[in-house]
Amino acid sequence: MQEFTALANTLADEAGNIVRRYYRAPFDVESKADTSPVTIADREVEQRLREIIEKQRPEDGIIGEEFGTKESQNGLTWVLDPIDGTKSFVIGRPTFGTLVALCEEDKPILGIIDQAISKERWTGVKGKQTTFNGQPTKARPCQSVTQACVASTTPDMFKKTGPVYEKFERGSKMMSWGADCYAYGLLASGYCDIVVEASLSPYDFAALIPVVEGAGGKICDWNSDPLTLKSDGQVIALGDATLWDEVSELLK
Amino acid sequence: MQEFTALANTLADEAGNIVRRYYRAPFDVESKADTSPVTIADREVEQRLREIIEKQRPEDGIIGEEFGTKESQNGLTWVLDPIDGTKSFVIGRPTFGTLVALCEEDKPILGIIDQAISKERWTGVKGKQTTFNGQPTKARPCQSVTQACVASTTPDMFKKTGPVYEKFERGSKMMSWGADCYAYGLLASGYCDIVVEASLSPYDFAALIPVVEGAGGKICDWNSDPLTLKSDGQVIALGDATLWDEVSELLK
Repeated sequence: MQEFTALANTLADEAGNIVRRYYRAPFDVESKADTSPVTIADREVEQRLREIIEKQRPEDGIIGEEFGTKESQNGLTWVLDPIDGTKSFVIGRPTFGTLVALCEEDKPILGIIDQAISKERWTGVKGKQTTFNGQPTKARPCQSVTQACVASTTPDMFKKTGPVYEKFERGSKMMSWGADCYAYGLLASGYCDIVVEASLSPYDFAALIPVVEGAGGKICDWNSDPLTLKSDGQVIALGDATLWDEVSELLK
Repeated sequence: MQEFTALANTLADEAGNIVRRYYRAPFDVESKADTSPVTIADREVEQRLREIIEKQRPEDGIIGEEFGTKESQNGLTWVLDPIDGTKSFVIGRPTFGTLVALCEEDKPILGIIDQAISKERWTGVKGKQTTFNGQPTKARPCQSVTQACVASTTPDMFKKTGPVYEKFERGSKMMSWGADCYAYGLLASGYCDIVVEASLSPYDFAALIPVVEGAGGKICDWNSDPLTLKSDGQVIALGDATLWDEVSELLK
């Protein structure tokens, strides 16, 4: 596993070097069909990370947001999101992150959330305690939704599911928007309690799973099923798993 | 004016010293009637800044979020928001800011947006170019809303006005939530184009005005009237003032 962690750290380091070069620099932003901005940095990072993986571990599969899927020949697949939170990146806000995950078949066993500007990195490895910049970190207890700090990225995510977020806004202590992947790191370090999102892709959530679980939290789909590369993109993360019964009612 | 700028910088420095002590530290969060969290840090900062102002300039008025209003005896009033974006502060996200403004009667002539964790400071002085960490900075041109990056803090702000933000979500290039005061700084440095908000208080927007105007942008209420301490809290900021005609249609 140590070999994989070392490679994942190399990937995040390389991504950071590129990301910092483009952050707040003037550049063209393309629009994809879903209108999320994709930057030159996004492509350059993914190309670089693919090169490194293909050189060091040619049999591993790769799933990336920009350049599609390379099939795995050994059951291991790297899942890359060069810049999760591209909108934040585009407006110059350091809450985006580079996500690197390694999956065994379709289950993530290693995940990194890296914020290259503030130089914050959460690393989760299956069966181990999550680290924040190399130091062990953990989620905090939270006994009820009324006491919970909730985060999500944008109400726009909930178009297909209906405005489920309104129940969290009404029922929780506070609701904060503009989450991006950064909020899952904050949850893993005990600063927020619930992240509720929808319309995510596997490269958006694969890396989050080992980070949240290794911090003692629960992360799953809205039916409490494990998230896999085949999940539908509805994601709920809880710093304290005992919130689930109450939260599951709000998700209905 | 230089005396005022020096004092404003001292106030922001002092606030930062306190803010950094409490950021991501475990502490109790009280709930106010409007459910926005108020932290111990918030009160400690405002108390400290009031002490400094009262000692150095006893005749100046003070308006603060936490401890109310001290009437001015000379037409000058300091407007303080120790931690704008308390929700971001509470979940450990460095997009909150300390806001310091100086008003002549009810018009802001000096404003600072300070982010104490990333150590980013925007300073606006009436008639001068805005600075970012001491260097001149300016907003960027933007020819139409379809090309604009739009920011706002939370849909919850628009309860009284109706969901005006939906028109910006549909009509712009992108819409980013979780803005806080930080987004006005980003607009003043040319990274985003429009910030649209409602339900703001004078201590939320007073400091933003010199920052945005000194960067070449336009900031006003939704009727294009100047923001003063008596404004109703509907705020629109444009990096490029020529967007106004198009934007005013969306605000109706």
